[in-house]
Amino acid sequence: MNQTIETILSHRSVRKFEDKSLSEEQIKTIVKSAQAASTSSFIQAYSIIGVKDKAKKKRLAELSGNQSYVEDNGHFFVFCADFHRHALIGEMEGTDVTSSIESTEKFMVAVIDASLAAQNASVAAESMGLGICYIGGLRTNIEEVAELLKMPANTIPLFGLTVGYPAQDTGVKPRLPMENVYHEEEYQQDEQVFKAQLEDYNREISGYYHERTQGKRSDTWTSQMAGMLKEPKRMHMKGFVEKQGFAKK
Amino acid sequence: MNQTIETILSHRSVRKFEDKSLSEEQIKTIVKSAQAASTSSFIQAYSIIGVKDKAKKKRLAELSGNQSYVEDNGHFFVFCADFHRHALIGEMEGTDVTSSIESTEKFMVAVIDASLAAQNASVAAESMGLGICYIGGLRTNIEEVAELLKMPANTIPLFGLTVGYPAQDTGVKPRLPMENVYHEEEYQQDEQVFKAQLEDYNREISGYYHERTQGKRSDTWTSQMAGMLKEPKRMHMKGFVEKQGFAKK
Repeated sequence: MNQTIETILSHRSVRKFEDKSLSEEQIKTIVKSAQAASTSSFIQAYSIIGVKDKAKKKRLAELSGNQSYVEDNGHFFVFCADFHRHALIGEMEGTDVTSSIESTEKFMVAVIDASLAAQNASVAAESMGLGICYIGGLRTNIEEVAELLKMPANTIPLFGLTVGYPAQDTGVKPRLPMENVYHEEEYQQDEQVFKAQLEDYNREISGYYHERTQGKRSDTWTSQMAGMLKEPKRMHMKGFVEKQGFAKK
Repeated sequence: MNQTIETILSHRSVRKFEDKSLSEEQIKTIVKSAQAASTSSFIQAYSIIGVKDKAKKKRLAELSGNQSYVEDNGHFFVFCADFHRHALIGEMEGTDVTSSIESTEKFMVAVIDASLAAQNASVAAESMGLGICYIGGLRTNIEEVAELLKMPANTIPLFGLTVGYPAQDTGVKPRLPMENVYHEEEYQQDEQVFKAQLEDYNREISGYYHERTQGKRSDTWTSQMAGMLKEPKRMHMKGFVEKQGFAKK
């Protein structure tokens, strides 16, 4: 196993960091790594906002549901779907690009582009001995986040990425059985097989929690998911996405 | 610079492969790497379909706009947004999860999850000396692709990933200037600065094409983008996404 695959397989989210900022060199390496990711037809439909300012990070932490590691870290990145650049290109080239930008297809392109870039950033950071955690909580008050970061039309702050020197050592969380995620030739058709795989996984996850919490917790994955999905969350998203000029048709 | 960052920064898409299949071991390493990526609240809302069958790859190549490298490669992966698993969990746990699954928020979660996984797969493959190319063309006839792969409700084939032993050596394509993509503290407000950066980039890209084509081609990035975005593409996407049970509210 090479060093890169070792880095990838040992990923765990880090939520406690040393009080030490990333250097400009580290930030540059992470951003350049993000930019090196594949992008749909060379469209590069994303931007990254780096936040160092303590007060701004504190506010972002509040808006994300009071996650302390949004405030206390080595650097905070916000990954954004971005067609503002292409709207300006429309002006520069005298071409009407609005219909294209407003399509659901291009919304997907921007979300995929930004995510590929973010994962490159994460792997690069981890290969340098840094820890990371994605912050989907940024979408809880997405309107306020967009305002705070002065984001124009045709952009969406998708998620944050908190990076820093790890001050905790957490374990690697077991993923779904490979055969439940990876299907050969066609999507797995037998629901009984599918459910049996989930039951197997439940036993594994339950054992994992039990061991790590000295028996205080032993919930299964399916109960966790059912509990989480019972109440729909962030139902403002469709309105916000459309208001920003995405996925309108 | 470590080996991982070197791998990431030297990415280029490969569209011609040797006639040699990936081993089961290689496929397993790539899928395990994909699964190791971060996932929103541990939701793991994606699946991967691996296609080896020659006839099926040939059909997928046709459906993707006759891209030969969809047929001729070492292995073909399809990355899918997937809440079918969670719909089954709803049944298993006696919980109504429909509203949650149908939300735009969860559509974004699934697209992001699948993309993070795919980028881990790509980096892992490249670290093993393999080449990759993302296939967004899979969305051109997405309905037929979903049918061919027998995909159930609550799933979407987002893109393909063709992997194999490179039989061509292409150059690394220069990305947008870092300062155009990476903004400090807030989104860059000055449109003149923004446009000037794009003009700089135009000169770089134009020179890149000129050199690589012995002067046959020297188009700018902004003209390329304007040309591409002039005609909206894949306008069936919204209908398909909603039909599959995503982003309905």
